[in-house]
Amino acid sequence: MSEFNDASIVEINEVMSAANSAASVMKKLSLAKRAELMNAIADGLENSGDELIQLVMSETNLPDARLRGERGRTIFQLRSYAKACVKGDWLEASIDTAIPDKVPPKPDIRKMLVPLGPVVVFGSSNFPFAYSTAGGDTASAFAAGCPVIVKAHPAHPKTSDAVAQIIHQAVKQCVLPAGVFSHVHGVSFEVGKSLVLHPHTKAVGFTGSYSGGKALFDLANQREEPIPVFAEMGSVNPVFLLPEKITSDPEGIAASYAGSITLGVGQFCTNPGLIIGIKSESLDAFKMTLGSQIKSMAPGNMLHGGIAKAYAEKRATALAQTNVDLLSNTSSDSSELQGLPTIATTSGENFLRNKLLHQEVFGPYSLVVECNNYEEMLAVASSLEGQLTTTIMATDNDIKNHTFLVDILTDKCGRMIMNGVPTGVEVCLSMHHGGPFPSTTDSRFTSVGADAIKRFARPVCYQNFPDHLLPSELQNQNPLSINRRVNDEIKASSIS
Amino acid sequence: MSEFNDASIVEINEVMSAANSAASVMKKLSLAKRAELMNAIADGLENSGDELIQLVMSETNLPDARLRGERGRTIFQLRSYAKACVKGDWLEASIDTAIPDKVPPKPDIRKMLVPLGPVVVFGSSNFPFAYSTAGGDTASAFAAGCPVIVKAHPAHPKTSDAVAQIIHQAVKQCVLPAGVFSHVHGVSFEVGKSLVLHPHTKAVGFTGSYSGGKALFDLANQREEPIPVFAEMGSVNPVFLLPEKITSDPEGIAASYAGSITLGVGQFCTNPGLIIGIKSESLDAFKMTLGSQIKSMAPGNMLHGGIAKAYAEKRATALAQTNVDLLSNTSSDSSELQGLPTIATTSGENFLRNKLLHQEVFGPYSLVVECNNYEEMLAVASSLEGQLTTTIMATDNDIKNHTFLVDILTDKCGRMIMNGVPTGVEVCLSMHHGGPFPSTTDSRFTSVGADAIKRFARPVCYQNFPDHLLPSELQNQNPLSINRRVNDEIKASSIS
Repeated sequence: MSEFNDASIVEINEVMSAANSAASVMKKLSLAKRAELMNAIADGLENSGDELIQLVMSETNLPDARLRGERGRTIFQLRSYAKACVKGDWLEASIDTAIPDKVPPKPDIRKMLVPLGPVVVFGSSNFPFAYSTAGGDTASAFAAGCPVIVKAHPAHPKTSDAVAQIIHQAVKQCVLPAGVFSHVHGVSFEVGKSLVLHPHTKAVGFTGSYSGGKALFDLANQREEPIPVFAEMGSVNPVFLLPEKITSDPEGIAASYAGSITLGVGQFCTNPGLIIGIKSESLDAFKMTLGSQIKSMAPGNMLHGGIAKAYAEKRATALAQTNVDLLSNTSSDSSELQGLPTIATTSGENFLRNKLLHQEVFGPYSLVVECNNYEEMLAVASSLEGQLTTTIMATDNDIKNHTFLVDILTDKCGRMIMNGVPTGVEVCLSMHHGGPFPSTTDSRFTSVGADAIKRFARPVCYQNFPDHLLPSELQNQNPLSINRRVNDEIKASSIS
Repeated sequence: MSEFNDASIVEINEVMSAANSAASVMKKLSLAKRAELMNAIADGLENSGDELIQLVMSETNLPDARLRGERGRTIFQLRSYAKACVKGDWLEASIDTAIPDKVPPKPDIRKMLVPLGPVVVFGSSNFPFAYSTAGGDTASAFAAGCPVIVKAHPAHPKTSDAVAQIIHQAVKQCVLPAGVFSHVHGVSFEVGKSLVLHPHTKAVGFTGSYSGGKALFDLANQREEPIPVFAEMGSVNPVFLLPEKITSDPEGIAASYAGSITLGVGQFCTNPGLIIGIKSESLDAFKMTLGSQIKSMAPGNMLHGGIAKAYAEKRATALAQTNVDLLSNTSSDSSELQGLPTIATTSGENFLRNKLLHQEVFGPYSLVVECNNYEEMLAVASSLEGQLTTTIMATDNDIKNHTFLVDILTDKCGRMIMNGVPTGVEVCLSMHHGGPFPSTTDSRFTSVGADAIKRFARPVCYQNFPDHLLPSELQNQNPLSINRRVNDEIKASSIS
């Protein structure tokens, strides 16, 4: 499949050794210097022109406009995380000044986040720019002050190589040690395994399947020194249609969901794979419109043959379940590489009985679950596993009448959307892209937005240090003008 | 040993079921109501009088003054975390307002931390108040909005029961469901195992030994749904004596360390168990003073027979190692229950060769490592595992001449102390009581100070919610007047 060789153990040792040496340099880099590196990578991407887009298209089957948009998003991530890095709120700098006449005397105590060390990043197949080589995990790790080792995704090794060249160039331009960033290839699971088990590795970022992410998580916990794994492993992103809302506009809601389900041939971790409603004429109208819209959707090429095959198989298995009915699929002919837009239906009772129906079918597929009543809808909500998102289509009255549902759903997800679609993940500080297991391996951290930086850092506390020996972030003068909690109050001023 | 029965599986199921129901109530409790509960427990402890102190003395052999001080500390923790809970900085509330004319439109996105759910707490033997039943973990979990299930420490079951009664009373007084707090006994590991494996358990707090903490961590990761375990597992807390500093006052430093090593019969997780210096006349003078001071120290009763026996065995094993010399121990007679204050010495070379010498000897024991030169001291520093604390005894000149040592030590610990002793952990926001594995299972969180609340919470993001349906913490008016990041700027004002 690939013209690249899997990294050997010797190569992995060399790479990790270089990363380990670079870690000592990186942790002393000023926030501004880290931002310089990130902006240099952004510049490189900006200058990568049509040629790179062509290359990525050839490896991913993603259309030109999508890839240009995604490259733009990747540049935005790098620049906005660089800005957040310099702003320094993520450092959680905190200062308690001494109280010498307390009994016993209170010493001067200050803390801030420091980098964990070398971070191994496993990019995703579905975001060749934004969650791959120079994507969100790499940007977060650099901002935190950690060297990065990227294992190229075997579905787009040339893309990964080309982006890695841009990063290497930026590292050189910033006069940093080469070990700040390394790039290895590996089709075999052994390469990833060796990277995660390497003693110099201090954290792992991953975006992909449950089986892949969970395997790395387990390996990391079995190490002599366990390390954190931030695996974003996808989700079915359930959507709840409440009675008054669905009655108000069944066709409009159906149309927006037909779009969301098939966006990017359904290859988003936030794709709405489950739609739950209560039997009614409005729900019938919703189904009818959704069915007819899906029928008219052209099938699209999926990222690669492997994903298309997996989709075809999972779709077939889902449709073969007892009491699961095909509502509609595209009427166009399709090739083996294409994902067939598909809507199936089942009853609430059947969904509760059959756990297989709770699983993600990665592609342009969604299952409409028709409940007999609100109690059954609550049972369905309660039966769900952890999700990246849940969506509620509801009027104010609906919410008033279904507060218990909202409570249950809050426990099930990382992001709740009101009257929208789950696809489209805004890159901003308030975003939380994460969620309870099994959507991720660590519900406490986001992989989108600058708070993602915190994944790769830990607090260190300095007790009784003379001012000039403290990191500048914690010095009295506050030379970086960052926000700090000083004796419990947040301020950006200096300490007199 | 105990007059209490180990909790049965039936009892554990009942307790966890009650906690699970209470979790739905607790997560909707206002911050003020959580604080009310915590302050009611503090009140109860304040009113617990001499009787409770007598009871704890009888179970722990800890002296009256120490226990009164520790009870005071526990009350302070409850009240100060309650204050932090209401202040709300820990919620990390964040708001990005909508930008409708952006392409694509940016939705309104807000996030804050929400409680994880039922937290199982394993208290420590050495802090019967402050890190046990109503200790730091319980206070943090309540502040986060989580029900708590405490497994009583088998070394002080009556103490745990008495404190549990105070908490039950406070729960009743605040008119909260009984499941908010549960208390079970268990001498057998099976009780702890069942609690950690129970599907309703969402997080675990632990303070104790490496073997105990690591076993719970492994169990938690092997669950179908892995959950976070915050285990504080102790440390040898290395102290580095730099040349100019030790020359300036070898006797004074020795005296303060003789006190720190034997404080509380050495039964603190921050006890300085390792002192590293470079061979010199000053180091000899330091050793001589330390040796003679330790010789004159009276042995003290340890917490219980098991700890005394373990100390005697580990001490004997350490002293039996090749090239480990006994520098001095107490000259008094001692009973089986007593811990013998002891100082041993070895060479840097021998320390590097023998990993057993890196292990904690829990009790009034410390090992002085004499290095041939600075290079050997660096090698010793590099060879250390993760620690709660490291201490540097140094002048400004020493630091200038030994920057590489400071860099290495930052990577090894959660707290660095300059010219002090590691014992004494201030309860304040800037404290970090934690550290790289194996001192804890999660270096990213503290178990002391109000930031400990964050261990038991995770972010949830609300997208496109009408203002009145948002939690009050995130509403435009900011009715709780908490700090929030609004479009990247921290402010406590309302949004117009």
